[in-house]
Amino acid sequence: MNLLAVGTLAFDSVTTPFGERRDVLGGSASFLSTAASYFCPVRMVGVIGEDFPREHLEFFRDRRIDTSGVLAIPGKTFRWRGRYDENLNVAHTLETQLNVLAEFEPKLPEVFRDSRFVVLGNIDPALQIKVLDQIRKPRLVACDTMNYWIEAPQYRTKLGEALARVDVLCINDGEARLLSGEYNLVKAAQMIRRMGPKSLVVKRGEHGALLFTEQGVFAAPAFPLEVVRDPTGAGDSFAGGMMGYLAKKDALDAASLRQAVVMGSVLASFAVEDFSLDRLRTLTRDEIGLRFAQYKTLTHFEAEGVSLWA
Amino acid sequence: MNLLAVGTLAFDSVTTPFGERRDVLGGSASFLSTAASYFCPVRMVGVIGEDFPREHLEFFRDRRIDTSGVLAIPGKTFRWRGRYDENLNVAHTLETQLNVLAEFEPKLPEVFRDSRFVVLGNIDPALQIKVLDQIRKPRLVACDTMNYWIEAPQYRTKLGEALARVDVLCINDGEARLLSGEYNLVKAAQMIRRMGPKSLVVKRGEHGALLFTEQGVFAAPAFPLEVVRDPTGAGDSFAGGMMGYLAKKDALDAASLRQAVVMGSVLASFAVEDFSLDRLRTLTRDEIGLRFAQYKTLTHFEAEGVSLWA
Repeated sequence: MNLLAVGTLAFDSVTTPFGERRDVLGGSASFLSTAASYFCPVRMVGVIGEDFPREHLEFFRDRRIDTSGVLAIPGKTFRWRGRYDENLNVAHTLETQLNVLAEFEPKLPEVFRDSRFVVLGNIDPALQIKVLDQIRKPRLVACDTMNYWIEAPQYRTKLGEALARVDVLCINDGEARLLSGEYNLVKAAQMIRRMGPKSLVVKRGEHGALLFTEQGVFAAPAFPLEVVRDPTGAGDSFAGGMMGYLAKKDALDAASLRQAVVMGSVLASFAVEDFSLDRLRTLTRDEIGLRFAQYKTLTHFEAEGVSLWA
Repeated sequence: MNLLAVGTLAFDSVTTPFGERRDVLGGSASFLSTAASYFCPVRMVGVIGEDFPREHLEFFRDRRIDTSGVLAIPGKTFRWRGRYDENLNVAHTLETQLNVLAEFEPKLPEVFRDSRFVVLGNIDPALQIKVLDQIRKPRLVACDTMNYWIEAPQYRTKLGEALARVDVLCINDGEARLLSGEYNLVKAAQMIRRMGPKSLVVKRGEHGALLFTEQGVFAAPAFPLEVVRDPTGAGDSFAGGMMGYLAKKDALDAASLRQAVVMGSVLASFAVEDFSLDRLRTLTRDEIGLRFAQYKTLTHFEAEGVSLWA
């Protein structure tokens, strides 16, 4: 199976305690697609301006990413500038230039419309709906969103409509609390799952991720890393790895979903090791397989046949 | 095996978003001993004033806790008053009355001096050393500490001496960062383990715990709870459950240590469900066993024989 990935393509300017980069490749569609491309062919949907270099598109194409859904229009590409302090869990946005993103009207190439696995990056929920309207028969739709769309009344209705059509919502803990109005994450998850998504993934940065489904809760810790240079794109790498894995397996069952959450954590753990998509440029399947196995070691304890009181 | 538990006995006054309690039973020795008492006989060491009610001592004795190491001296019992907001991970201390704790000179009953498993609650490191000096041949010593002893130069030397004699240091993430001077927890753990403790447990409240040993890292998520009324004593319940389990098994091996960390998490997850030690008053072994099994479900995913790319 292939995966349809929708989101932004961006130039990021990032400062962290470990360095600084100007106008490097970023955006949710970039991270989603690149992370997923280890597992399956990816169809990318987004918008770029005239300043987007050909080499970035070639990087995607070299990775089995079909960029025919990436619209090039007059103007400048979306730009984000941000800063992280020691607590890499919190991004401080310094500047956002929407540029061509303000005029983004997703129009899927005809061949993309039969996609079964879909991941919608954090964009205007009205655009997320426009994408879903063009897909004939989606099998599994994952979606990200953010505070901005949750808080503003003019977007909230559209967000509700989008959520009703989403299978897996993939947001961070702050967003889950904001969306539900409930601080306790277990209760928040119950409320959000009543809004539409059968499954909710709560991303908690260095504290890992929680998966809430009708079968219960699955907790995946973040992989403890000695080197974290830039957390930008971690959430999208997570969603891309998760959905790429499910698309490749063509599976929706509970056991596969747990593995997919671990795979998302694995891809995110690599993405943060360097700036921009740089770590993903050199990452190999062998490295992914090794860290997946290390994840098992990280969380394993013996429970079967253990006599607690004898 | 029995467990020697050293720490404070206190009257706590606590306000959380879920209620308020005045002068209820608290203190590290209380939580450590009660949590451990599910697993093994406990020897309690601490100090109380004349105002400490007989019923609390009887509660301990009913639970196989030997209180002959609890010194009653003239004056008032240690008191702590604190508040938690919605983010239950952060305690705001409003008042501390040391009272008799200021004159605490731990003197172990002769029969306690052969203890092999020892857990030292967060008290002046000089007192922790005095306890260790009285134990003939400890096999496994676990220890807690806090910012206060780490930051003050007059205590730091003693803390260093204590750490050199500790096997398992059990502190929270902020304390680990402060003690090592390093924000990254993987690097912080390496530095702290060079100070003496072969094993380091980093407690992260609702984000679970990390165990660092020479064999690697083990990550135990916190059990996702719908009801958390009062986090006071969570860390001590964790350490008590962990050390009680190891004392009962009389084991130090890596697999047992991982199970013990899970057991610590289980006891902490119960302790926070109600104020003071109230949840532990009614908690049964069956409930503990059930939640231990649920922990396995919480973190389990299939990794063996999984073909990631086929």
